[in-house]
Amino acid sequence: MDRVLVLSGPNLNLLGTRQVDIYGLATLEAIHESLAKLAQELGVAVDCRQSNHEGELIDWIHEVRESHVGIVFNLGAYTHTSIAIADALRAISLPSVEVHLSNIHAREAFRAHSHTASAAIGVVTGFGPASYTLGLRALMDYLGRSNQD
Amino acid sequence: MDRVLVLSGPNLNLLGTRQVDIYGLATLEAIHESLAKLAQELGVAVDCRQSNHEGELIDWIHEVRESHVGIVFNLGAYTHTSIAIADALRAISLPSVEVHLSNIHAREAFRAHSHTASAAIGVVTGFGPASYTLGLRALMDYLGRSNQD
Amino acid sequence: MDRVLVLSGPNLNLLGTRQVDIYGLATLEAIHESLAKLAQELGVAVDCRQSNHEGELIDWIHEVRESHVGIVFNLGAYTHTSIAIADALRAISLPSVEVHLSNIHAREAFRAHSHTASAAIGVVTGFGPASYTLGLRALMDYLGRSNQD
Amino acid sequence: MDRVLVLSGPNLNLLGTRQVDIYGLATLEAIHESLAKLAQELGVAVDCRQSNHEGELIDWIHEVRESHVGIVFNLGAYTHTSIAIADALRAISLPSVEVHLSNIHAREAFRAHSHTASAAIGVVTGFGPASYTLGLRALMDYLGRSNQD
Amino acid sequence: MDRVLVLSGPNLNLLGTRQVDIYGLATLEAIHESLAKLAQELGVAVDCRQSNHEGELIDWIHEVRESHVGIVFNLGAYTHTSIAIADALRAISLPSVEVHLSNIHAREAFRAHSHTASAAIGVVTGFGPASYTLGLRALMDYLGRSNQD
Amino acid sequence: MDRVLVLSGPNLNLLGTRQVDIYGLATLEAIHESLAKLAQELGVAVDCRQSNHEGELIDWIHEVRESHVGIVFNLGAYTHTSIAIADALRAISLPSVEVHLSNIHAREAFRAHSHTASAAIGVVTGFGPASYTLGLRALMDYLGRSNQD
Amino acid sequence: MDRVLVLSGPNLNLLGTRQVDIYGLATLEAIHESLAKLAQELGVAVDCRQSNHEGELIDWIHEVRESHVGIVFNLGAYTHTSIAIADALRAISLPSVEVHLSNIHAREAFRAHSHTASAAIGVVTGFGPASYTLGLRALMDYLGRSNQD
Amino acid sequence: MDRVLVLSGPNLNLLGTRQVDIYGLATLEAIHESLAKLAQELGVAVDCRQSNHEGELIDWIHEVRESHVGIVFNLGAYTHTSIAIADALRAISLPSVEVHLSNIHAREAFRAHSHTASAAIGVVTGFGPASYTLGLRALMDYLGRSNQD
Amino acid sequence: MDRVLVLSGPNLNLLGTRQVDIYGLATLEAIHESLAKLAQELGVAVDCRQSNHEGELIDWIHEVRESHVGIVFNLGAYTHTSIAIADALRAISLPSVEVHLSNIHAREAFRAHSHTASAAIGVVTGFGPASYTLGLRALMDYLGRSNQD
Amino acid sequence: MDRVLVLSGPNLNLLGTRQVDIYGLATLEAIHESLAKLAQELGVAVDCRQSNHEGELIDWIHEVRESHVGIVFNLGAYTHTSIAIADALRAISLPSVEVHLSNIHAREAFRAHSHTASAAIGVVTGFGPASYTLGLRALMDYLGRSNQD
Amino acid sequence: MDRVLVLSGPNLNLLGTRQVDIYGLATLEAIHESLAKLAQELGVAVDCRQSNHEGELIDWIHEVRESHVGIVFNLGAYTHTSIAIADALRAISLPSVEVHLSNIHAREAFRAHSHTASAAIGVVTGFGPASYTLGLRALMDYLGRSNQD
Amino acid sequence: MDRVLVLSGPNLNLLGTRQVDIYGLATLEAIHESLAKLAQELGVAVDCRQSNHEGELIDWIHEVRESHVGIVFNLGAYTHTSIAIADALRAISLPSVEVHLSNIHAREAFRAHSHTASAAIGVVTGFGPASYTLGLRALMDYLGRSNQD
Repeated sequence: MDRVLVLSGPNLNLLGTRQVDIYGLATLEAIHESLAKLAQELGVAVDCRQSNHEGELIDWIHEVRESHVGIVFNLGAYTHTSIAIADALRAISLPSVEVHLSNIHAREAFRAHSHTASAAIGVVTGFGPASYTLGLRALMDYLGRSNQD
Repeated sequence: MDRVLVLSGPNLNLLGTRQVDIYGLATLEAIHESLAKLAQELGVAVDCRQSNHEGELIDWIHEVRESHVGIVFNLGAYTHTSIAIADALRAISLPSVEVHLSNIHAREAFRAHSHTASAAIGVVTGFGPASYTLGLRALMDYLGRSNQD
Repeated sequence: MDRVLVLSGPNLNLLGTRQVDIYGLATLEAIHESLAKLAQELGVAVDCRQSNHEGELIDWIHEVRESHVGIVFNLGAYTHTSIAIADALRAISLPSVEVHLSNIHAREAFRAHSHTASAAIGVVTGFGPASYTLGLRALMDYLGRSNQD
Repeated sequence: MDRVLVLSGPNLNLLGTRQVDIYGLATLEAIHESLAKLAQELGVAVDCRQSNHEGELIDWIHEVRESHVGIVFNLGAYTHTSIAIADALRAISLPSVEVHLSNIHAREAFRAHSHTASAAIGVVTGFGPASYTLGLRALMDYLGRSNQD
Repeated sequence: MDRVLVLSGPNLNLLGTRQVDIYGLATLEAIHESLAKLAQELGVAVDCRQSNHEGELIDWIHEVRESHVGIVFNLGAYTHTSIAIADALRAISLPSVEVHLSNIHAREAFRAHSHTASAAIGVVTGFGPASYTLGLRALMDYLGRSNQD
Repeated sequence: MDRVLVLSGPNLNLLGTRQVDIYGLATLEAIHESLAKLAQELGVAVDCRQSNHEGELIDWIHEVRESHVGIVFNLGAYTHTSIAIADALRAISLPSVEVHLSNIHAREAFRAHSHTASAAIGVVTGFGPASYTLGLRALMDYLGRSNQD
Repeated sequence: MDRVLVLSGPNLNLLGTRQVDIYGLATLEAIHESLAKLAQELGVAVDCRQSNHEGELIDWIHEVRESHVGIVFNLGAYTHTSIAIADALRAISLPSVEVHLSNIHAREAFRAHSHTASAAIGVVTGFGPASYTLGLRALMDYLGRSNQD
Repeated sequence: MDRVLVLSGPNLNLLGTRQVDIYGLATLEAIHESLAKLAQELGVAVDCRQSNHEGELIDWIHEVRESHVGIVFNLGAYTHTSIAIADALRAISLPSVEVHLSNIHAREAFRAHSHTASAAIGVVTGFGPASYTLGLRALMDYLGRSNQD
Repeated sequence: MDRVLVLSGPNLNLLGTRQVDIYGLATLEAIHESLAKLAQELGVAVDCRQSNHEGELIDWIHEVRESHVGIVFNLGAYTHTSIAIADALRAISLPSVEVHLSNIHAREAFRAHSHTASAAIGVVTGFGPASYTLGLRALMDYLGRSNQD
Repeated sequence: MDRVLVLSGPNLNLLGTRQVDIYGLATLEAIHESLAKLAQELGVAVDCRQSNHEGELIDWIHEVRESHVGIVFNLGAYTHTSIAIADALRAISLPSVEVHLSNIHAREAFRAHSHTASAAIGVVTGFGPASYTLGLRALMDYLGRSNQD
Repeated sequence: MDRVLVLSGPNLNLLGTRQVDIYGLATLEAIHESLAKLAQELGVAVDCRQSNHEGELIDWIHEVRESHVGIVFNLGAYTHTSIAIADALRAISLPSVEVHLSNIHAREAFRAHSHTASAAIGVVTGFGPASYTLGLRALMDYLGRSNQD
Repeated sequence: MDRVLVLSGPNLNLLGTRQVDIYGLATLEAIHESLAKLAQELGVAVDCRQSNHEGELIDWIHEVRESHVGIVFNLGAYTHTSIAIADALRAISLPSVEVHLSNIHAREAFRAHSHTASAAIGVVTGFGPASYTLGLRALMDYLGRSNQD
């Protein structure tokens, strides 16, 4: 069965316990469960990981470049500062989708800029935990379409 | 049955016939049909309109503020220049979702800035016609969630 | 009797029903009535119009260039984006006064810049509906003064 | 009887004798007389002062914070450079109105920015001596309105 | 006979009556007549239109995309603000030439930037009414050359 | 006994009575008392002054250049606008410490820049009245250390 | 017979042999011949020169200030860097026209700015060798018009 | 006994051996000893750690969020580049104090901006090793004060 | 005998005792003596004043507007921050010359900008105390020339 | 035998397999072999390491500060974002040389800025794998030269 | 007898014949004569040259580096664009003085910046032909002073 | 035998005699000799030229476009200002290498930007005279490699 890497970056391990006015009450585990459920419907397996280390996130992106079919990623604050992760995404040939829980266009100005967005097929931002599931749908939709071409 | 306004802005009437390397081969009519089909599944009606006139887009946003439950909009180039449409979206109380066919983060710098994104719940960008259907899903998901709270 | 055009731009038709924390409870109709009352005191007629269409606002400015003696205008969001309306005001020889309901210096940075202000005699900003009546007084005062010179 | 402070900043003591193409022929004394006359009509007393010293202007703002009901101020060049006066206006609880003789939007770019405008209710700019009288009207109108709420 | 659309934007209907120190005494009608005369010499028909409405200008560009062979356009102030018209020009396959009556490099800084110029073959700016006729010559020269290649 | 000048700038005379959500309830007198108490412990005398006049603050800095051993200063809004006070601090050879009641990094952007900070040994910002006492400790610590070197 | 200076700047001597995708196959000699032919039609003589030296271009502009009736110039890269040539054009009283082979608005950002354009009557850009002949027409048209005034 | 985390970022392990003109001769171990001594006086325990790894610093901040009462941190160069650490500090509810050995306002411009300062109570900068002890005092003072409220 | 005001701004009273590597060893008194000596040669009287107060400098400029024939001024740090003094110089009709001891183009970037230079005839900067005497010569030369015209 | 550290940063482990149009076909192993060969000729040993972790790169720079004689480094994307690595290079006393495979001046604008270049002796950029060997030559040349002085 | 090079840059050969409202009626020859006369008084010889060629100006600066005692230069438009001439001035050890006929602070913004000013002792700007003679005085004064030290 | 042009720009003729703290003691002749010696080893001839004239440097680049196999260039200050030389390098088909004696990244900000670097294969900066020899090696290495492909 095809596998999709779901990557979460710094501080997302605290989800559901911190700043709930911005990020809501869902924990990262709950999000991973929703993803697993949707993945089953769509006939794919999800491989969910989280790290606070920029280097480890890069290592994982390299690691899956032949074993998986795509990546859904929420890089948290590294979205705005890491050219190295953006380069890693460009260096491998997997399609990927960027997701954010909050609407990055409606927060501080520095959160509106993403180094990684231009390395992805597209971006889903602002729908809380649903951003992850919409992102997975968008990736599968893309893979289906491009397989046919 | 609840109704959702699907709004398309300038030049989107030419879809499928222009710059197909960027925007793909699907026409706006085909997108409207996909939306109608998904809407039926989700138990909602879609009301699809397109205009090249900034003023007419504002008029329509005002017009639906009590008759519809939400808006999915792709404002084309007005995304980057119209504070007036952004004000119109803020002036009414309907939730809305911004969508783009192409990934605005991977094109010219001036297309990365959106006046309207901060007036929406969130944004879906880069998945071709699927951006519209993902946007409708995101809106319905949001309406379901907020109804329960 | 001399006539003054009072021009209101995009979204001002919703006044009194939207964002009342910023714009207050007065409707545009109520403002028009206050203006008519003050106009009578000052011995002038007011001709009040509103449009969401940039082109229509330009057409009206052209239209009154010989029939009216001056313009009081609140262009809403077009204040910040329309060079074309500013050019229209410069192209005709009527004196005009720019007014704003809210204090544009105390809101988002992009609202502090006005393309049209330098085409007017002056600006009145921040006094709610009274900005319109103060603007009309300012215009009449100017016309009186310049007639005497 | 309620009192209003009318504050004029640097170089305004020279009014009527300097750069008459920009500022006109009226002296500051003449403006003070017009204000006194209008004040009488409106049932309020005006207390008019002028200083070239930033510190003295701050001292006066502090001084009137319990004895007066509002401030009409034209800070001249300190408008563009003094955060300290803006802080003084914010530190006391009196409503205030900023006025300018010339249209600051139609002069040098550095005159378009005001540190103090966001500390006031609103701004009246460009109507010559009438800016002061319109400013006093605007202040009294505001005090009337807010007393009623 | 081949047809060329000649498009004029906001405020150009007032030509010859406004700011004659900048734009000269020729009316738009006179310019249209000169163009018709030159067109006859060059064996082509001109179809001259003017509108103050951004949306109408876009509609017209779409409308002629199969019926005409090229466009000469002077978009007035929309030159500097309309990405939507630039997108319309890019969306159709007709060659076009941008013209300006005054030299946009010798006026206010904001007039030096054109959103539409990069969507055209080239630009003719500064020669008064002759900019239109030179623009038509340039377009016909281009069509001749590219037909031969 | 060694003396330290404690200098407070514009609007700090109003402390405890204005914007208590930002600056707290302590008055400047109370702060001076805490400083006097700590000074006694540290075996030094404090000489506390406040002025709203930029020129007077400069005069005082010049005045103490031989009679005192250092300066603790909170220049309020002049922090962000006065190159002249910064020059005064550089012109004399006394060590000085800059303090702020509120955290200047967590307020408006223009408050993050200090002209005077680079003329001081260091800065203490954000601890309310304790910023002054920590500043005095920091100065005495510095004087002790540099005496020993 | 009246004479017109046609001035070409750095690297234009290589025309037809370099970067033909941008500049086309025509050599500078061929352009000079077309100009001579058109000049004959228009009853004027052209005096065509090229130099890679900024100082020599300035010397030539000075030299012709009494012997010629106008200048058509393509300054190549000096367009973007030479204030000295712009000053030379302003220092003499001859009318001049700036031309460019490629559309400078559709290339690198630094090529969109011209130091010399504001010293000319107008600009013709983007039509290949035809830019020179259109430029000559524009100059002659201007001379005819201004002679009649 | 309450515990305080003292966090030092990249390159601070080299303290006392590198660039002694900027950072002085004290080693990090010596600073830790001074802190332990002061902590004993203040009745609190300090837990001192250093890492060159951004991810490890984030992990540690998460780890202490229930076991400690506050954080004193000197993030070295990550001060200027890490939004992720700033987010980590905001995600937990512990009060924290930012400290710097050198005066960041008196060095290169890029060192004047801190991503983390707005997530802290306040900042102490420029007093060498004493910045750490002053920072601990400031934290304890804050905890005392807020316990009383 | 004609009188010239020589005005020195903040911190210049300390001259010769502070930062002698930048400003040299001459005191302000010595400079005043050199000026008096040169003035005698040139048949004019100098009236030399210094203040650290912006408001007092403005008062003095107003005061001499009929009693003196010109001003030589060195405003120190107010050069870079005071629009009010620049307005004062523009408000009176006396010719003035700006002087600086050090070369403001060879120091910190913020010292290269002068608000007051454009209100003067010209500027002399960088020649130590000789800047004052050259400035007086330049003023007298200008007065002589313009008297003859 | 003297040892030189050769440091490669994020994503360089993928060399030869990714974006071969930019980075070429050589693997990092092949580059290490070329370096070893050249090192032997020059009588020095190379110690080649790669990591995707910013913290690990800093640790290694610290580690070699007494055991090696110099560093040749290619930091990949950390070149543009890591002030911490630049500080590490400055903190130790070893000479170092920055190298890049591609010409960073001929790519995206953000790649033209290097935080680390000013901490190195010099930079070699654009020669593919030869950048590493030229960098080693440059370092050895520098060591030879400075030993002789 | 000591010699001073007086260097004039592009377009200054046209002085007295061009833009007399800005530059006045004096020719460069007349200025050279005034300089020769003043030089005689001061016991020095002047060697006056003008060129429109940047390279020639650099050659001349190199040429005089042992034969002359100083340079007075007015580089015209090269002031604002030539880093190469500024480097030439820095490369030789002669003191130099920059002069301008018009006040560069009171003209277009791009004329306020000088590449060469920081390579000179100081600048004299705005006094017409007297700028040259004041510049020569300033240079001789400086030479006298530094000879004595 | 193949020939390589070695081009040196403005002020480099003074090498070894000027600013030796930045540029070292080697003369340009000595550098040319080292290059000749290395060239002999590598089996190529070097043709070394220097000019202070931008135009002459362009002429030489044109001249060698068929007679030589490549260019090593150090354009001095023209690096930062000459788009014309960059265009010349792009206009011919020879590979070239940019070299600098000092590390341009560790000097003034304006020296970090190179117009010409993107027209070269790569850049070698900071190694003194060795930059030239490393540049020649890099060029020959490139020619060898590309010959084999």
